[in-house]
Amino acid sequence: MSLEEKLTELKKWEFKKSAYELLMSTAYFDDETIAPKGGQDYRYERLALMSGEIYKISSDPKIKALLYELKDEQIDEVTRRKVKLLLKSFEDLERIPQEVYEEFTKLSLESQSAWAKAKSANDYGIFKPYLLKIIACQKKMALYRRPDSDPYETMLDDYEEGMDKKSYDAFFALIKKELSPLIKAITKKAAIKDDFIHAYYPKDKQALLMNDINKLLGFDGSWGYMGVSLHPFTSGFSNNDVRVTTSYDEYNISSAIYSIIHEVGHAFYEHQIDESFEGTILKNVSSGMHESQSRFLENYIGRKKSFIKNYYPKLVSLFKENLKDVSLNEFYKAINIVRPSLIRTDADELTYPIHILIRYEIEKGIFDESIDIENLDKVWNQYYKEYLGIDVTSDDVGILQDIHWSSGSFGYFPTYALGSALAAQILHYMEKEKDVETLLEKGDLKAITDYLKDKIHRYGALYDLDTLLEKSFGERFNPRYYIDYLKDKYMDLYDLKNDELM
Amino acid sequence: MSLEEKLTELKKWEFKKSAYELLMSTAYFDDETIAPKGGQDYRYERLALMSGEIYKISSDPKIKALLYELKDEQIDEVTRRKVKLLLKSFEDLERIPQEVYEEFTKLSLESQSAWAKAKSANDYGIFKPYLLKIIACQKKMALYRRPDSDPYETMLDDYEEGMDKKSYDAFFALIKKELSPLIKAITKKAAIKDDFIHAYYPKDKQALLMNDINKLLGFDGSWGYMGVSLHPFTSGFSNNDVRVTTSYDEYNISSAIYSIIHEVGHAFYEHQIDESFEGTILKNVSSGMHESQSRFLENYIGRKKSFIKNYYPKLVSLFKENLKDVSLNEFYKAINIVRPSLIRTDADELTYPIHILIRYEIEKGIFDESIDIENLDKVWNQYYKEYLGIDVTSDDVGILQDIHWSSGSFGYFPTYALGSALAAQILHYMEKEKDVETLLEKGDLKAITDYLKDKIHRYGALYDLDTLLEKSFGERFNPRYYIDYLKDKYMDLYDLKNDELM
Repeated sequence: MSLEEKLTELKKWEFKKSAYELLMSTAYFDDETIAPKGGQDYRYERLALMSGEIYKISSDPKIKALLYELKDEQIDEVTRRKVKLLLKSFEDLERIPQEVYEEFTKLSLESQSAWAKAKSANDYGIFKPYLLKIIACQKKMALYRRPDSDPYETMLDDYEEGMDKKSYDAFFALIKKELSPLIKAITKKAAIKDDFIHAYYPKDKQALLMNDINKLLGFDGSWGYMGVSLHPFTSGFSNNDVRVTTSYDEYNISSAIYSIIHEVGHAFYEHQIDESFEGTILKNVSSGMHESQSRFLENYIGRKKSFIKNYYPKLVSLFKENLKDVSLNEFYKAINIVRPSLIRTDADELTYPIHILIRYEIEKGIFDESIDIENLDKVWNQYYKEYLGIDVTSDDVGILQDIHWSSGSFGYFPTYALGSALAAQILHYMEKEKDVETLLEKGDLKAITDYLKDKIHRYGALYDLDTLLEKSFGERFNPRYYIDYLKDKYMDLYDLKNDELM
Repeated sequence: MSLEEKLTELKKWEFKKSAYELLMSTAYFDDETIAPKGGQDYRYERLALMSGEIYKISSDPKIKALLYELKDEQIDEVTRRKVKLLLKSFEDLERIPQEVYEEFTKLSLESQSAWAKAKSANDYGIFKPYLLKIIACQKKMALYRRPDSDPYETMLDDYEEGMDKKSYDAFFALIKKELSPLIKAITKKAAIKDDFIHAYYPKDKQALLMNDINKLLGFDGSWGYMGVSLHPFTSGFSNNDVRVTTSYDEYNISSAIYSIIHEVGHAFYEHQIDESFEGTILKNVSSGMHESQSRFLENYIGRKKSFIKNYYPKLVSLFKENLKDVSLNEFYKAINIVRPSLIRTDADELTYPIHILIRYEIEKGIFDESIDIENLDKVWNQYYKEYLGIDVTSDDVGILQDIHWSSGSFGYFPTYALGSALAAQILHYMEKEKDVETLLEKGDLKAITDYLKDKIHRYGALYDLDTLLEKSFGERFNPRYYIDYLKDKYMDLYDLKNDELM
């Protein structure tokens, strides 16, 4: 086969795989948003079969041989990266027996469903047997893939190429050292008033606001769709078909606003990756990088006063009864309030990484067996007491709050804190080139998302984290920007002096 | 292979096929309801590939050989019917080259999209080139399948096993002979007042009514979901996952009400087929039988005064400004008004079969080449003038009104009139066993849908039309009940005497 024929062969295979993946994404989105529960058994049995079909395609020995051949050819940078990532996934995958993979898919769907039931019944007991099975299954799969590695290292690397326990340990140690005293100092200050955030906000009217916010952000019906699900998420079907979901808390207006801005941050990434990467492995951006974009929009843009100004008049007009006497500045302060709390997704920017630190510690403990997995709920509660000083009052706001573990996503959480830190670094460099405040005052979000496209989005998975940062900003990952950003912002907001941090 | 092994093999294949079909149904439903237009090209290319995959499964030579073997074995009635239907589909399919089949799928999706564009732009010119290609492609496929048959006969048989031009010619001749004088006589009588039907009914409030009507019918969120699309349709994913769509006309409250009752009629069929037929060819009920159930609920139940009574108070409370002075009886008369009009889906029960007659004549003419297909829009308009005495004012209410031809569904329309006629026959027998009026007065729809389950639904595609009717009612298809029903109902409603029909 000539090089050209080999590349054509690869393209054909990529196309086929992308067709199967599109249908699976569609089915999962449907399942999470609108599908009647009655059809779940029928659906899950068939989704398991289809994931077996994708397994077959993804481990096609002819393509593997082709990739080995291509590796030694004179190929361009894009193809070289594809071949590298694909070979990694082939090598990982072929070590997992197909029946184990199918078992995992089915278990994962059942487990997600059990999690949803357990959460709404506020009963960890319903979910526990599934969680233990999922842990065992994930461990087994990680050991099939890399028999000589610590399973958790394997999982961490899945979500962020190159990040390992050593780097995360250092990162979280810095967070603990620098942020814990700040949080402690803030809890001693007078509380910011935010009762109006928790007034009654009916969801139909919230939805009207979300449409406006989407429009402001440039999340457009021609390439995006917003649905409603239990847990908000984003799914990029293709560059011009990106789905996000939101969920409404009728007693917390901040919840839907900031979860939709977050998901739209993800959506822009999916939308703005180089079109020539569509339907290929180069769309599979690492979790930390992806999260940097959602966090960037949610916190570093969305929580600025200059941004809030754009949606606040509409919000007040929709909910006069709650907000007629609340100034923009009071609202700004309220949605940036720092208050150690139980729910990660509703956590403020400052305590958020502590929620992640807790999950990271628990995941590490699960897989190095230093934690008794029979008592994960109790361990959870102890950590919340220890790190955030609060009592977990029930399972649904404790160990049952997140969907991740129910689908076997261990090693994912740490990338959330990593993403926040990356976003701070990106903001630092953006501000060198753009007058962000003025852009937000003018409601010109396009200048911001264009910058992100240029520096980050368009590259997709072409580079690993540090390579991309070096290329776009001339500096590798550096968590210092994150710590500095948080300290500056919150010492100012709470009018703290350095000596109060002792 | 033992008989048992053969049956296991068949089941395995059915399961795999049903998994692919479920994902395709999901993707089509998504495409018709919420999918962003921007992703259409990417999506359609991949759906075409997937339909090629289904083609491969559906024409698997190993399964064909297995079916030939099973045919000669001692097998039960259910398996025998499956083998018969499957062999028919195998034999049909293997005659179409795979590339032709894939070309058709892609063309069909593009053509549906062009139709939607053309309809909203009110410009047949946009759709015409696609329609001509679809006609040529369908003809080619019909000739591949049955080289010695008239292509249109092949298509008619696809939608209703056993029905051919001869039977439809006789059926439509009866309709023309018996109903045309009745329609003519009615147009001479004083018009029924129905201006309040066409007042302004905002769609958000219409949606609230639809939720109530669904509840009344027993269309339950545990097994069903209602979406919104350009053209209402039903898709049965599995027994306990049935999707319907509706579309809202803000100046015709009757439109959404009767289209949703219609679709829910289809939905009950999908829901109530014997559970052991799930995921098999025995779920593929013929179009005429399917339509009999939607028509039954829509017209024979939904348009009765005793049924309307159940939803009318809610309707009035939602739209006081339009209906506060309209009595139940006036509303009942208005939604049963007879008025020759342009749009099939909004047509009254009596002129409805004339809309179908027109389509039947045009389809026959397309495929026996007695009509110049360069001028289908003009032919359409001529027929409407001739049969219903009305002028087609523009394409969107003329030839562009229906989606069917855009997906190559020729031979489908006649089953709509057939379904109406079957429904009349079913009502005749139901009324012998049940006091339908009293049930409706009590709002006991379950007794009615249970009867339909018992007599019709549960059998799925186990029998052909006449066999099922013989089995359940002791009589083959007889259009006389339909004619008698329409004459009785509308002579009474319009206070007509026999001598006025001359």
